[in-house]
Amino acid sequence: MGIENGRRRVIIEGVKPEIDGGRFPIKRTVGEKVVVEADIFTDSHDALFCVVLHRKEGDSSWQESPMGFLINDRWRGSFTVTELGRYRYTVQAWVDHFKSWRQALGKKVEAGQDVSIDLSVGAALVEEASKRASGKVAKRLRELSASLSSSGKSSERIPLALDEELAQLMAEYPDREFATTHERELTVVVDPEKACFSAWYETFPRSCGPESGQHGTFKDCQARLPSIAAMGFDVLYFPPIHPIGQTHRKGRNNTPVAGPGDPGSPWAIGSAEGGHKDVHPQLGSLEDLQSLIADAKEHGIEVAMDLAFQCTPDHPYVRDHPEWFRLRPDGTVQYAENPPKKYEDIYPLNFETDNWQELWDELKGVVLFWIDQGVHIFRVDNPHTKPFGFWEWLITEIKREHPEVIFLAEAFTRPKVMYQLAKLGFTQSYTYFAWRNTKWELTEYLTELNQTEVREFFRPHFWPNTPDILTEYLQMGGRPAFIVRLVLAATLGANYGIYGPAFELCENRPKEFGSEEYLNSEKYEIRHWDLESRDSLKDLITRVNRIRRENPALHRDWSLQFHPVDNDQLICYSKHTEDLTNVILVVVNLDPHHTHAGWLELPLQMLGLDGHQSYQVHDLLSDARYLWYGSRGYVELNPQTVPAHIFRVRRRIRTERDFDYFM
Amino acid sequence: MGIENGRRRVIIEGVKPEIDGGRFPIKRTVGEKVVVEADIFTDSHDALFCVVLHRKEGDSSWQESPMGFLINDRWRGSFTVTELGRYRYTVQAWVDHFKSWRQALGKKVEAGQDVSIDLSVGAALVEEASKRASGKVAKRLRELSASLSSSGKSSERIPLALDEELAQLMAEYPDREFATTHERELTVVVDPEKACFSAWYETFPRSCGPESGQHGTFKDCQARLPSIAAMGFDVLYFPPIHPIGQTHRKGRNNTPVAGPGDPGSPWAIGSAEGGHKDVHPQLGSLEDLQSLIADAKEHGIEVAMDLAFQCTPDHPYVRDHPEWFRLRPDGTVQYAENPPKKYEDIYPLNFETDNWQELWDELKGVVLFWIDQGVHIFRVDNPHTKPFGFWEWLITEIKREHPEVIFLAEAFTRPKVMYQLAKLGFTQSYTYFAWRNTKWELTEYLTELNQTEVREFFRPHFWPNTPDILTEYLQMGGRPAFIVRLVLAATLGANYGIYGPAFELCENRPKEFGSEEYLNSEKYEIRHWDLESRDSLKDLITRVNRIRRENPALHRDWSLQFHPVDNDQLICYSKHTEDLTNVILVVVNLDPHHTHAGWLELPLQMLGLDGHQSYQVHDLLSDARYLWYGSRGYVELNPQTVPAHIFRVRRRIRTERDFDYFM
Repeated sequence: MGIENGRRRVIIEGVKPEIDGGRFPIKRTVGEKVVVEADIFTDSHDALFCVVLHRKEGDSSWQESPMGFLINDRWRGSFTVTELGRYRYTVQAWVDHFKSWRQALGKKVEAGQDVSIDLSVGAALVEEASKRASGKVAKRLRELSASLSSSGKSSERIPLALDEELAQLMAEYPDREFATTHERELTVVVDPEKACFSAWYETFPRSCGPESGQHGTFKDCQARLPSIAAMGFDVLYFPPIHPIGQTHRKGRNNTPVAGPGDPGSPWAIGSAEGGHKDVHPQLGSLEDLQSLIADAKEHGIEVAMDLAFQCTPDHPYVRDHPEWFRLRPDGTVQYAENPPKKYEDIYPLNFETDNWQELWDELKGVVLFWIDQGVHIFRVDNPHTKPFGFWEWLITEIKREHPEVIFLAEAFTRPKVMYQLAKLGFTQSYTYFAWRNTKWELTEYLTELNQTEVREFFRPHFWPNTPDILTEYLQMGGRPAFIVRLVLAATLGANYGIYGPAFELCENRPKEFGSEEYLNSEKYEIRHWDLESRDSLKDLITRVNRIRRENPALHRDWSLQFHPVDNDQLICYSKHTEDLTNVILVVVNLDPHHTHAGWLELPLQMLGLDGHQSYQVHDLLSDARYLWYGSRGYVELNPQTVPAHIFRVRRRIRTERDFDYFM
Repeated sequence: MGIENGRRRVIIEGVKPEIDGGRFPIKRTVGEKVVVEADIFTDSHDALFCVVLHRKEGDSSWQESPMGFLINDRWRGSFTVTELGRYRYTVQAWVDHFKSWRQALGKKVEAGQDVSIDLSVGAALVEEASKRASGKVAKRLRELSASLSSSGKSSERIPLALDEELAQLMAEYPDREFATTHERELTVVVDPEKACFSAWYETFPRSCGPESGQHGTFKDCQARLPSIAAMGFDVLYFPPIHPIGQTHRKGRNNTPVAGPGDPGSPWAIGSAEGGHKDVHPQLGSLEDLQSLIADAKEHGIEVAMDLAFQCTPDHPYVRDHPEWFRLRPDGTVQYAENPPKKYEDIYPLNFETDNWQELWDELKGVVLFWIDQGVHIFRVDNPHTKPFGFWEWLITEIKREHPEVIFLAEAFTRPKVMYQLAKLGFTQSYTYFAWRNTKWELTEYLTELNQTEVREFFRPHFWPNTPDILTEYLQMGGRPAFIVRLVLAATLGANYGIYGPAFELCENRPKEFGSEEYLNSEKYEIRHWDLESRDSLKDLITRVNRIRRENPALHRDWSLQFHPVDNDQLICYSKHTEDLTNVILVVVNLDPHHTHAGWLELPLQMLGLDGHQSYQVHDLLSDARYLWYGSRGYVELNPQTVPAHIFRVRRRIRTERDFDYFM
């Protein structure tokens, strides 16, 4: 510490939120609040004044919000972010000699002590403040100082000294000469609303053809937009739409050799027809895609692209930039492998190449290209297999010009790697949700995501299925299992998505026992789905998505609380808005095979209920209403009908005419 | 992040220990280990090499210790600090391409794949390493590279590739071009052994006179050294020994006006006879003190001084440096106050003075003066009433030249303030121990001190009493209460102390009901104590201190674990050495009034017991031995005899001659 700081007596530490000592930003969306807390104290018993400083990046001057004292030397303040982009914030505090003096004076007056000298001490403080002020205020402070130090009776000067007017003027012109500022400026990245609240529908465009065996096109997808919008989804995500390689192309069910009609995996990117900036000709033209994107926007849907930075042996990069790949001593390009497994259809990019800067720039160009086509959401394939530094650079660069862009990290890997990707900039992240089935697992995991520092940087995205993941639970549990996982994903996660039509049609046949791969996976072949099947879950999905939209409690995750139920197959949780005007209570029977019943225990006060009046729980799924009283509620759920309640909790409101209704 | 780092693929985060992002050092004593952990990972599946770097401050080059993988991307390494002073440490890691290659090769060989090209890839890695090596090693690496890439059969080259010799040579000459180093260098302050393990005896020299009413002297204290040493104490701490002020001197029992014979409070420092660098003439001369200090050392005792940076109106500083005090508008000096209370006998130093640098230098001079007299331990009075920055500067400055010096912070204030003082440099700290009486309170508090990050910087010091603190528990509980608190302090805290002879004579009369002040407190008068009283606890104290010395488990705090007992009045805990050769198990009856019995539950394995054989618990207080079997033990403690067991847990050792003994 520098010797010049000898009179800075205030300590600021334990600032939250602050990720890894300020190394990484926190995340918010437009209109959200940033609540800042810190331990702030000084020696002795002097009073403090503490503020949160904040500004949009690029603004030259700070704005200030005062902090209030909580307990145990903890202070709290807040500010609201109103624009996309990056904000900075920090904490400043100083010893408030006037406030200390005023408090001491009050006590001395109360004890009947002679305070004439104290009044002169105060007069000097006010005189100094007048020099920091100007105009009328300076004049008023000089007047007050003169009155305090006048020769009049103490009893006449005391009310002036303790008056609110003086306290407020002094608070406006404090002496900050020895103020302490937290040593780090911290960053908030402000994203669009969809970063926090979105319902994704993933589908293979090539399976959208009207007839079996036909290769679907962008135009076919476009025709499906009304029904996808009607189901309530607002993001439509396509697996890669680029030309697919021929060399070592995989056949149906991932067989090593493709048959003549096999279309190959969309993730095997690159052919003679182009690479990452091109579209697969059988899907249509770039103009078709632009038209689809524009039409989707009309339907309230954003189209999300897949960023899968890997190449087939046929990719133009292999020919034009062999230096971006790892060459083997025999002159061939190193293919992907996980010994003893070989993936000869894929050449990974070599990020340790001497030409890494050109490579980075090219990949940034790919993202910019698709932004130019109207794409603002990217689902990033396996980001954990490319360097962390690359992603931090790429996302920061892109969002500098395009702060509205959303990057979803598709990393199913170790927890610290997943969190690192979120810290360095990914807007949203896939999670372990698909494999969290029991009450204990869900409670532990969701508590970690929502009640720890993780929530400041990691925005979870819940998928009950993906083209890679057909879980054991879905395989074994049939239709009730699909409903259970839908309700859980859609109400536990403000961001959720399904891979359809496999999901709504309850497709649950695995490639083989013990595998999470689908039988006849769309990754390797074109499927035709019976969208009008009577067994489709689309009406239920429509209703769940409408419940989500209509209930702001479900637009965010941080209010999530779990509540005890005396049956481990029943899980119960609530979400609410900050003002408690919207309270949602969910109960799910996790056992897809048997009816379960139990008593749940609710923290009435935290849900805005007073405990002395009955209240209504209104099941938004079935529209049934139940009158409950007290903290214990009884539920019984049969998986063969609907294995879940999504209750809106309605308080009894007494009107002037003594007529009750439920809010 | 700089663009030049594009190929640094390793992430290092979550480094522990690291206090407030490296802002503050951790603490160790000579010979102790620093265990360093970090989350370290990279993209993809490459192998890593991770090391802890460490050096004595001032040394130009780092030493290295390899880190081992734990679980969940966590790595651990360690180093030992061998000298007083400051060390630096950090973490470095890199992608180990050779190790990745070797692991992959092993799997491919096992799967019977053709690895001829892989061998050439490896040969290139070895060739590169040979350029980083020199002499014989370089030559050997070139040979190995040539053999790997030779045209011989793969089956002949494979054993060479997987051989340990090659792995070890490659580990010695790794490619660190893209190594990541943790962005912060962290600091360890290394203190002498007494910083961690000490038994303090606080006493008023002026009460050491041989006869009642006589003012004791340093010579009288010197005569008491053998008995204090015999009791087993190794630090003798004196309240301030400086000239005592006359103006507004306090009388007996803190009355506002002193009587003619009243000696005043030693903490009211400064008179016409001198200030902080002078000794109170009635105690003797500076030479007498030097002689006492030297003699104490012969008895294995360090003399600790009180640093109380405050002045009476008679202190020479008031006359010579009025600018170091706060002047009131009427020209008088501002006395201490806590409105409406006034402390007119004390003038606080004004650390906001424009001349703060001179003031700081003067106070540093005071410490240096006493170091020159042979004092190396300072108990600092109320450090929380002086600026934190001052202490950080003072302690750092002093310890730069005198790393053996120990500063004990006497701050009984809010938790974050106490922890801040420890972070900024205090070697040891007073605690809330005096007011933690119940099993729940002790368990919670000691767990916070020993099982959280707090232990890295805050070394607790446990005092059952001080001249300011006669707790309710001691007032109400009589002699058993004193024994309970002695055993708890001495076994829970490797650092502990008592204020005697008040403690060993069980002095428990408060000034008044509801007060923690002693009746006829030695702070304001000279007391004469009957040191030979038959009721004295000195024999018990002697035994407890001997048990402490003889059992290394009690020399440190971090191994402390609490164990369940089915009676809330009985507390049970253990401490052990790292190798489990010394295991101490303590059981205390916290109720000083009634006999209590209960069953305790021990984690046998953690205590080095196998659960299948009986073991001995040997009560080192009573010398009784009990044979126990299994994890449950029965205890019964009568407070009227001894309300505690301090067991040494002895394992059964089977000798060659089939004769058992207990270790």
